[in-house]
Amino acid sequence: MTKHFWKTSISKVEPNKILVRGYDLTQLVGRYSYADLTYLLWRGELPSQSHSQMMDALLTSCLEHSLNSPSVDATIFVASSGVPLQSSVSAGVAAMGEWHGGAIEEAAKVLQEGAAVKDKSLQEIANGILTTWKDSGKRLPGYGHPTHTDDPRTKRLLEVADEAKVAGRHVNLALEISALTDELYGKHLILNVDGCIAAIISDMGFDWRLGKGFFIVSRTPGLIAHAYEQMYFEKPYKSPRWSEIEYTGRTERKVPEP
Amino acid sequence: MTKHFWKTSISKVEPNKILVRGYDLTQLVGRYSYADLTYLLWRGELPSQSHSQMMDALLTSCLEHSLNSPSVDATIFVASSGVPLQSSVSAGVAAMGEWHGGAIEEAAKVLQEGAAVKDKSLQEIANGILTTWKDSGKRLPGYGHPTHTDDPRTKRLLEVADEAKVAGRHVNLALEISALTDELYGKHLILNVDGCIAAIISDMGFDWRLGKGFFIVSRTPGLIAHAYEQMYFEKPYKSPRWSEIEYTGRTERKVPEP
Amino acid sequence: MTKHFWKTSISKVEPNKILVRGYDLTQLVGRYSYADLTYLLWRGELPSQSHSQMMDALLTSCLEHSLNSPSVDATIFVASSGVPLQSSVSAGVAAMGEWHGGAIEEAAKVLQEGAAVKDKSLQEIANGILTTWKDSGKRLPGYGHPTHTDDPRTKRLLEVADEAKVAGRHVNLALEISALTDELYGKHLILNVDGCIAAIISDMGFDWRLGKGFFIVSRTPGLIAHAYEQMYFEKPYKSPRWSEIEYTGRTERKVPEP
Amino acid sequence: MTKHFWKTSISKVEPNKILVRGYDLTQLVGRYSYADLTYLLWRGELPSQSHSQMMDALLTSCLEHSLNSPSVDATIFVASSGVPLQSSVSAGVAAMGEWHGGAIEEAAKVLQEGAAVKDKSLQEIANGILTTWKDSGKRLPGYGHPTHTDDPRTKRLLEVADEAKVAGRHVNLALEISALTDELYGKHLILNVDGCIAAIISDMGFDWRLGKGFFIVSRTPGLIAHAYEQMYFEKPYKSPRWSEIEYTGRTERKVPEP
Repeated sequence: MTKHFWKTSISKVEPNKILVRGYDLTQLVGRYSYADLTYLLWRGELPSQSHSQMMDALLTSCLEHSLNSPSVDATIFVASSGVPLQSSVSAGVAAMGEWHGGAIEEAAKVLQEGAAVKDKSLQEIANGILTTWKDSGKRLPGYGHPTHTDDPRTKRLLEVADEAKVAGRHVNLALEISALTDELYGKHLILNVDGCIAAIISDMGFDWRLGKGFFIVSRTPGLIAHAYEQMYFEKPYKSPRWSEIEYTGRTERKVPEP
Repeated sequence: MTKHFWKTSISKVEPNKILVRGYDLTQLVGRYSYADLTYLLWRGELPSQSHSQMMDALLTSCLEHSLNSPSVDATIFVASSGVPLQSSVSAGVAAMGEWHGGAIEEAAKVLQEGAAVKDKSLQEIANGILTTWKDSGKRLPGYGHPTHTDDPRTKRLLEVADEAKVAGRHVNLALEISALTDELYGKHLILNVDGCIAAIISDMGFDWRLGKGFFIVSRTPGLIAHAYEQMYFEKPYKSPRWSEIEYTGRTERKVPEP
Repeated sequence: MTKHFWKTSISKVEPNKILVRGYDLTQLVGRYSYADLTYLLWRGELPSQSHSQMMDALLTSCLEHSLNSPSVDATIFVASSGVPLQSSVSAGVAAMGEWHGGAIEEAAKVLQEGAAVKDKSLQEIANGILTTWKDSGKRLPGYGHPTHTDDPRTKRLLEVADEAKVAGRHVNLALEISALTDELYGKHLILNVDGCIAAIISDMGFDWRLGKGFFIVSRTPGLIAHAYEQMYFEKPYKSPRWSEIEYTGRTERKVPEP
Repeated sequence: MTKHFWKTSISKVEPNKILVRGYDLTQLVGRYSYADLTYLLWRGELPSQSHSQMMDALLTSCLEHSLNSPSVDATIFVASSGVPLQSSVSAGVAAMGEWHGGAIEEAAKVLQEGAAVKDKSLQEIANGILTTWKDSGKRLPGYGHPTHTDDPRTKRLLEVADEAKVAGRHVNLALEISALTDELYGKHLILNVDGCIAAIISDMGFDWRLGKGFFIVSRTPGLIAHAYEQMYFEKPYKSPRWSEIEYTGRTERKVPEP
C-alpha cells in the first residue's frame, strides 16, 4: 500500500480513546459547546471566550430561510422520494454552491486580500475592489439580497461582533465597500449575511477557504427539519403536475426511420 | 493494511490495459453498444442479440419525464446554485428512492418470489400477492401512475419484449396481477413502467437487487440535459418567492430570556 | 399551481424578517447556542436548561472518529477530485446509513416501543427485545463496536445525562439490554454511542425518526475539517494504485464477434 | 406563483404521452439506441449514422477503471454503510470533478477556442495554448495519465473517429499539442481519454459545457456494478482499521478549564 495513504492530523482513534486535535474527546463533551468544538476542529485550538461567543452567533445566523432557498427545495424534493433522511440532507448540502452560501468564501478572499494592503486607506482599497469587480462583470459576492433590503442577520451579527470585540479591519472594509456602492454601482448594495460572516471570520483569522463550512453547518439542522417535515407530514413524490409545466420545446414531429 | 482491502471482480487496470469482466475494453469500444456493455458490467457476460435489443429498450424507456419528476426537480434547484454539472446530477440520483424508480427493485423481488412458486397457477399466485400487499397497507410497487391512465412506456416495452422473445412467466404474472386489481382493489391498477421493467428484467434473469440500476442509467442523460438547461439558459438561485410560501407554523411570539 | 405546493411550519421569511418556530431569528442569534436552536428547529420549542446542556453533549459526542469511518473516507476521496467543499461533505452525509449513524434511529425505535410496555419489568422487556432481535438474525442496533471494547463516548454521555437529570426509563432499558447480552448472545455487547444517544433522546421525548439527525449534525464539522485537509494539504486524485488492487474476476478472454 | 417557474424545452408530459425534443418517446424506444437518445436529449436532434456510431464509442470508453478511480472509491465506502443503491452512485457522481472527468470540459473549451483562430497554423495555435498553460502553472487538461503511458482508450477512440469520419480540426489540434509537449514541457504528455473525448466531441459540434456529461454517463453503470458488489458480496462498514491510520497531529494535551 502506498505509504501514508491513510493519514490525518485531525484526530486519532485507539480502542476506547478518541483524541481530537490532541484533546481527549470525552473531556471535551459536556464542557465545551458544539460551536467551540467546531472551532477546535477547524483551527486546531479551542476558542477564546470572545471567539466562542462569536462562533455560536455565526453558526446560528443562517439556520433557516424557509423554502426560499435552493438547498431546502432540493432537500424536500429528494425527501419526498422514499429515501432515508441523510439522502435528502446530502442533496441539500450539494446545493450550497457559489450563489448559495458560496459568497462567504469568495467575499472572505476579497476582504483578506484587500485588508492585507498596507499603503492605502480603507476607502481607497474598497474603491479598488469595487472597480475591479464592476469591470469583471461578475456579481459582487456578499452584497445585495433578493428578499431583504436590509439583511436582519447582518445587523445582528455586527452587534454581537461589537459585544465580543472581534470586529476589526475586515468588517470596516466590508462596510466601506457597501457605502461606496451607491456611487460606483448607481444603487445601494447592502452587506448581506454572507458578506458579514466573511468579514467577521476574516477578523477572527480564519482561512477564507473554510468560509463555506460556516454556511453548511449553520443550515444543516434546518435541512433536517425540512426533510423530516416532508417525509412524515407531507405527501410523497413531490413534483409539479404535468399541466403546470410550461413546455417551450419543439412541437411534435414524426420520428424518422432509423 | 487489511488483506484484500482493495478488491474487485469487475475490472482490472494495468498500465495501458483495461480488462472488463475479462475482455479488453479497447476491443469492446466501437463494437458493442452502451447497453451491451452495461449488461456485461452487471451480468459478467455479453448479451445475446435478443437481450441486447431488450437492454436498449429498457435503458431508454425512462429517459425523460419532464419536471414531473422529483429527481429532475432536485437537479434543477441544485443546478441553479452555482455548482459544477456533476453536483446537480448527483442530487438527482439521490432522489431515485423507493417511490421514484425504486419500485423496479421491489416489484422484481415480488415477481421473482411469486414466479418461483411451482404448485399454483399464475392466477392463484397473483391473487396471493395482491392479497398480501393489500393486507400490508403498503402501496403495490409497479402498479398505477399519478399522470398516466395507461402508461405508454409499458405498452411499448411489452411490444419489444415480444419481438425480442424475452417475455415469459414474470411478464405474464405481472399482467395477471394488474388484471386482478379491479376485483381485489376495487379499481384498475395499470402495470406502470417500473413494474414492466421489473417483469422483463426478471424474465431476463437479472437479480432484482439491480433493478434500480436500470432507472438510474436511463434517467441520467435527462438529468444532465436539465442541469445544462438550468445552468446556462435560466436564472440562477431558483426558489419560490417568500410571498409564494404558505407558512403554517406558530405565529410570532416573544423570545424568552435565556 | 397545486394549492399549498410550497408550505412549511418551520420558518417564515419576509423582507428583513425571519421567524423560526415563531421567534425572530435576530433575537435568538447571540443569545441561544447552536445546540439550543437545533432543538428549537426539531422540536418547535426552546430547550429547558437541562435539555440544552444535554443537546450540546449529544451533538459533540460523534464529532470525529478519524478515517475509521466510511463517511469521512467517502469525503476525502471526493475532496481529492477537484470539487467545491460542499460536494465532498454531501458525499460524506450520504454515507450515514443504517450501519453508520443509522443505528440511532433504529435503536430509539426499539427502546421507545419497549419502554411503552406497561405491564412488564424492564428486565422482561429487555429479554423480549433481545430474543426478538436474535431470532431475526439482524444485528442489534446500538450495541457492540468494531474498535472500542468500552465506548468512551457512552460513558461520558451517561455522566452528562445524570448531571443534567435527563436519564430515565429508556436509558435504564438500554443498559438492561446490554447486561443481558452475555447470557442471550453468549458475549458481552456494550452499549455504543449510537445506542446511548438513542436512549437519551428517547428520555428527552424526541421522535425516533429524528435520530439520524444527531449523527449528521455531530459529524458534519469533522467532514468539513477532513475535506479541507484533503483539498489543500494532500495530493489530488486519491485512489489506490493499480498494483495495490486485487482482481478476483475472469482471466482475460477473447472478445467475440458482435 | 412566479410566471414560468416550471419551464423546460426538453420534454413534455401529458397523460399517456411523452414527447422528447418533439418525438414521441414510445416511437423512439426499441428503434434508437441509448447513445442516440442521449444525443437527442443533449443536442435536440437525432444523430447521423456516423455520429451515432461515435456516441456509442464515446459513452463506453470510460465505462470502468477499477478502484483506481476516486468516484468508484467514494461509491464503495458509501455502499458499505447500509444505504440504498442510488445513494452510493450519487456520491460517486459527486466525485467527477475538475481532476476526474472534468478535464473533458476544460480541454474541449481550450480546443474550441484554439480551433476558432483563423489566421494561424495549427502548430502555432498549439504552441500558444501550451505556452499559456505552462505560464499559468496549472495542469494541462486532457494530457498525461498517472497509470497509462499510452492511454489505450485514446488510440481506440481515434480509430473509431477515423472510421466514422468525425475526426477533424479539433482532433488534429489535440494531437499537435501532445506532439509539442516534449519540447515545451521537457517531457512527453500523451493525449489521455479525457482530452481525446474533448477533441472528438468538439469536432462533432458539442458545446464544451456538456463535456462532463460524457464521463458521467459512461462511468455510471460501473459505479452501479461496484455498489452492487460492495453491498451484497463484501463486508459492511468499510474503513481502514485504527491501527492503519497515520496520525500526524498534536500529541495528547490536557483539556483546559472552560
